[in-house]
Amino acid sequence: MRVKDIGEQKLLEQIKSFCSENLIGDDGAVLSIDPLQKIVVTTDVLVDGVHFSDKTTPPSSVGWRSVAANLSDLAAMGAAPVAITIGLAIPKELPIKWIKSLYSGINIMLNKYNIPIVGGDLCHSPVKTISITAIGKVYPNHIIKRSTAKPNQVILVTGHHGMSRAGLEILSNPRLARDLNKDIRLKFINAHQNPQPRLDVLPYLWNTMKTHKIAGMDSSDGLADAIIKICQMSNVGAEIEQSKIPMIAKLSKWIPKEEALRWVLYGGEDFELVLCLPQEIALKLLPQLGENAHIIGKITQKKSVTLLNDNSEDLPLDLSKGFQHFY
Amino acid sequence: MRVKDIGEQKLLEQIKSFCSENLIGDDGAVLSIDPLQKIVVTTDVLVDGVHFSDKTTPPSSVGWRSVAANLSDLAAMGAAPVAITIGLAIPKELPIKWIKSLYSGINIMLNKYNIPIVGGDLCHSPVKTISITAIGKVYPNHIIKRSTAKPNQVILVTGHHGMSRAGLEILSNPRLARDLNKDIRLKFINAHQNPQPRLDVLPYLWNTMKTHKIAGMDSSDGLADAIIKICQMSNVGAEIEQSKIPMIAKLSKWIPKEEALRWVLYGGEDFELVLCLPQEIALKLLPQLGENAHIIGKITQKKSVTLLNDNSEDLPLDLSKGFQHFY
Repeated sequence: MRVKDIGEQKLLEQIKSFCSENLIGDDGAVLSIDPLQKIVVTTDVLVDGVHFSDKTTPPSSVGWRSVAANLSDLAAMGAAPVAITIGLAIPKELPIKWIKSLYSGINIMLNKYNIPIVGGDLCHSPVKTISITAIGKVYPNHIIKRSTAKPNQVILVTGHHGMSRAGLEILSNPRLARDLNKDIRLKFINAHQNPQPRLDVLPYLWNTMKTHKIAGMDSSDGLADAIIKICQMSNVGAEIEQSKIPMIAKLSKWIPKEEALRWVLYGGEDFELVLCLPQEIALKLLPQLGENAHIIGKITQKKSVTLLNDNSEDLPLDLSKGFQHFY
Repeated sequence: MRVKDIGEQKLLEQIKSFCSENLIGDDGAVLSIDPLQKIVVTTDVLVDGVHFSDKTTPPSSVGWRSVAANLSDLAAMGAAPVAITIGLAIPKELPIKWIKSLYSGINIMLNKYNIPIVGGDLCHSPVKTISITAIGKVYPNHIIKRSTAKPNQVILVTGHHGMSRAGLEILSNPRLARDLNKDIRLKFINAHQNPQPRLDVLPYLWNTMKTHKIAGMDSSDGLADAIIKICQMSNVGAEIEQSKIPMIAKLSKWIPKEEALRWVLYGGEDFELVLCLPQEIALKLLPQLGENAHIIGKITQKKSVTLLNDNSEDLPLDLSKGFQHFY
């Protein structure tokens, strides 16, 4: 059964039936928010052939990742999710079961955080396109900004980078991964298909922010991208120490070290948080963020953003090596 | 100059320069809303070749209409606009001037209501796709719902229907319109390209709602669609009187009356409001809504939705004649 085979009313009813029942707002859903909280909004558009493909991403993962990307944007601002809207543009030839699978992934994310779908749009397009907008809420003193990093603060990341990129590689070129241990292979694939936005660490950050501001953003466009953007917005620089990024060592058992470094810095879609705060505060926070969180460098007055490699050479980080939306 | 000819950073800067400067939120824009107000959210996706085409819609009108559609959704809920996000998916070959023109239309709408852009996404797609989400605010007693229409209430529409459809026809088949007066021709084209969401009438509706609830929605998918959806959601029926819809007479000087009726009922994209309220209240409200507002029928206990034509025949309204997103 394809989209063109059933009437529009029927299609809407079907899609409604794919959503978690308790999470659908009827008749112009209306949201209430604690008067002391502020509202933040974030939008992500995912396009078939650009952000996902049938080869590497089953529809359930497309749904999962499209919600996860938005929730990660909220986490990056220190905000808890309130609701989402889903805009879905799909070809007439699309099998209904593709949409059902898409929503199964969306549902997993929404159920996990009890987030209602409060609006949306459904229309025809020759290219499958999913546009999700997430509404978040945040107390003013919990807002994480990109523009407030200060020299001598350390750079703390909440987890490993390069895993999503490794998963994509395994899915794209399965033969490359034949020597990899199965558990590791599945871990990388899972990191790519079912990433976890780091909403789980927000309570610890909010607690820290009772006394200290935290600057930062998420690493959805890559670790290097996050560091460079924070530095640009804060008018500072950064020094990253390659030896403090454990994932490079793990990946370089499988691929050349230079390639491993590239995946970690520029691979993107790991949806971790990159946070800047005073060292003594970071050291107290670190154990609360799980074993994969680590301090990888520091913010500098000098504006350049460099990587200190294992040969004690300073290499500039360069965004042109990262994920580019157009080029 | 095309999208692919300039770097991504440069493209983002260009797009930022196209936006009204005072309306851009930096670094994770944060919104404040009166604690007594509720938040509503609405999303619309517009796809090239489906919702617009170069033949009938210059890019500035694509921008204008994509914002107008969302603001009309807010007006339909009784809500005032707070902010929007823009998700833009565009081909690499797209001329930058197309994007500039798109934003010129977006700016007109945003400036008119002083609405900031608080987020968005920019990515590649083979098909130009614009996804806009609007956030609105509404006091609980000002919320307009589709589900609260009651038998014996009258159905009031805020303006003419069929004009956008007439404009589309003139743009698609210019020869058809050669006998039309130039002023009328431009009026129809303007109705199609630069529709006005009816936020202007909200203060009068809010005033009425101090004492009386109003049910309703907007007619963006057609007048018949709005009436049928309100009836379905409210578990009622409706009787519309053809003689009370003035636009049919005006259009039928140009096209056959049957066709005029079809455009008025099923044409869509007029972005008027279709409101249900007690007759005596509607009669007081009517003069405040401008000369084109009129009462066209009433809500009935009997579930059918019918049109009483000029020969006193009862014809059922039928959504299959209206705008279909897929068929």
